[in-house]
Amino acid sequence: MTTPHNPSAEDSLIARYFKPLATDPGAFGLVDDAAILSSSGDDIVVTTDAVVEGVHYLATDPPDTIARKALRVNLSDLAAKGAAPAGFVLTLALRGKEDAWLRPFADALGEDAESFACPLLGGDTVSTPGPQMISITAFGRVPRGRMVGRTGARPGDVILVTGTIGDAALGLDVLTGGAVATALAPDPAARDALISRYRIPQPRNVLAQSVRDHATAAMDVSDGLAGDLTKLCAASGVSATVNVASVPLSAAAAGLVARSAICVETLLAGGDDYEVLCTVSSEQSDALMEAGRAVGLAVTAIGTIVAGHERPRFLDGQGQELTLKRLSYSHF
Amino acid sequence: MTTPHNPSAEDSLIARYFKPLATDPGAFGLVDDAAILSSSGDDIVVTTDAVVEGVHYLATDPPDTIARKALRVNLSDLAAKGAAPAGFVLTLALRGKEDAWLRPFADALGEDAESFACPLLGGDTVSTPGPQMISITAFGRVPRGRMVGRTGARPGDVILVTGTIGDAALGLDVLTGGAVATALAPDPAARDALISRYRIPQPRNVLAQSVRDHATAAMDVSDGLAGDLTKLCAASGVSATVNVASVPLSAAAAGLVARSAICVETLLAGGDDYEVLCTVSSEQSDALMEAGRAVGLAVTAIGTIVAGHERPRFLDGQGQELTLKRLSYSHF
Repeated sequence: MTTPHNPSAEDSLIARYFKPLATDPGAFGLVDDAAILSSSGDDIVVTTDAVVEGVHYLATDPPDTIARKALRVNLSDLAAKGAAPAGFVLTLALRGKEDAWLRPFADALGEDAESFACPLLGGDTVSTPGPQMISITAFGRVPRGRMVGRTGARPGDVILVTGTIGDAALGLDVLTGGAVATALAPDPAARDALISRYRIPQPRNVLAQSVRDHATAAMDVSDGLAGDLTKLCAASGVSATVNVASVPLSAAAAGLVARSAICVETLLAGGDDYEVLCTVSSEQSDALMEAGRAVGLAVTAIGTIVAGHERPRFLDGQGQELTLKRLSYSHF
Repeated sequence: MTTPHNPSAEDSLIARYFKPLATDPGAFGLVDDAAILSSSGDDIVVTTDAVVEGVHYLATDPPDTIARKALRVNLSDLAAKGAAPAGFVLTLALRGKEDAWLRPFADALGEDAESFACPLLGGDTVSTPGPQMISITAFGRVPRGRMVGRTGARPGDVILVTGTIGDAALGLDVLTGGAVATALAPDPAARDALISRYRIPQPRNVLAQSVRDHATAAMDVSDGLAGDLTKLCAASGVSATVNVASVPLSAAAAGLVARSAICVETLLAGGDDYEVLCTVSSEQSDALMEAGRAVGLAVTAIGTIVAGHERPRFLDGQGQELTLKRLSYSHF
């Protein structure tokens, strides 16, 4: 964009790469300092998650996947809260300004913004001498008072989880040359599938309204199923029993477990799943599983909420409690 | 916070330092992934600004001033948009987790959140091996359709600015041992005052409602008065004439200009002022200046909006146009 007004380097970069994404009228084409989320009578759900190069993604990850991951980890939070996406703001801390990185980053971000109906509303672009970082604050809408929290799980509720668990952690292991990389050396298709699960989360926004209609509590699984269920139980003042054999695994993950190439703890405590973990009353669990089937998404019962304040118990196929050395993957 | 649930390092840090700041019911005590901005019939104004160590603040700046600056640069945007603060979310990229840094940071952030009625709603804390970064997304409320934009300036409007211009740029020069440090060596009080202007912006939220009532366009001055006025004019499709002798200066800045220790361009293109720049119809300018007087804040007329698409012209006391080599301070 050439103007006689000599826009700054930052303004030029924003106009070139990000203005085309700012399709919502509340974004004012990114020419203002601020955006508008218009009044609609709905509550606005706000969530913020940042990804840091070398911490949450690898410097060698393709820029289009970095863009998708940065947005999707936030979309995943909205899905678990039962909210419909309404838009996002972006803070981009850049070390360089190469078109070869920014162009695929911006294009992929724009594609995801469109396909998830979550337009770019504004942002800030800053220079950093250190690792790149993308911080996104995303907004969703729910009818007044209807956000699904973490505190509503009650004894007797069924614990449900979407998709499959542990694949992203295996994908990271492949990318960093761990044991999974070796075990899957003869199976490039499985390796690629796991890598894709690490790089490009599949947030479950398609199920958001059903989560809102049926769940008593929900969160997304980002730091590991075991640790995240522990947090949900703590917030609700309850405990839980999980049947580990019921935890849904991909064919690749199940094969690795069957061959004893990995232990199940790697899956339960691995991060980056971005599935929905929720609790529903026993009367409602069929309805949520049916809603999943209707959109082609597995929704699996993995256990039960019980009274108490102990950590959730993870039982194997023989009813023996597994001792998990760790519950979560910590990026911190 | 000790629980049998083994919270992660990040959760412990959040509970220890930031949970006390999350006083709004929509923050859910920071135990959820998301917060709620409740429906009120108002438009929600969203703004996001990040500060990076070594770029927007100095590594040697005290942590309490870093916290205040990170929040206040966002509060300043809300003030210029005519919005009342409603809350903020925080992304904190930390290299270390020392109590000696985090405690004063969190305490000062909490004090500002309370005094500006802008509670912490949520956040994300991530680890970085590089420079620390604080990214804040702040929310304000305006009656529906009443946000003050950049596009409404019209020929004949008076250009007004709050406070004084250029002090923060001089403060940065003092801190980095520039010419101002030398010139002010005998006057530590003046040096301290300028440093304080750099480290702790004074956002003009007290004037927000009057800006909303009277201004045709507004923005905050963050990258330098000359460059920011240029942006406002570009967005409105107009030009401007500024009487440089009318630009309000502090006693310290005026003294430095009088002694020729600095040139006026340093002030006009310096960054980090965080004053409100706005345009008002000539009939309304007295009302806005009076509103400033009522709250003890100088509001000064510095020029006039004129038709055209040229860059704003900056005229000296003799009506001669100054040639500014640069318009803005670029952090980018």
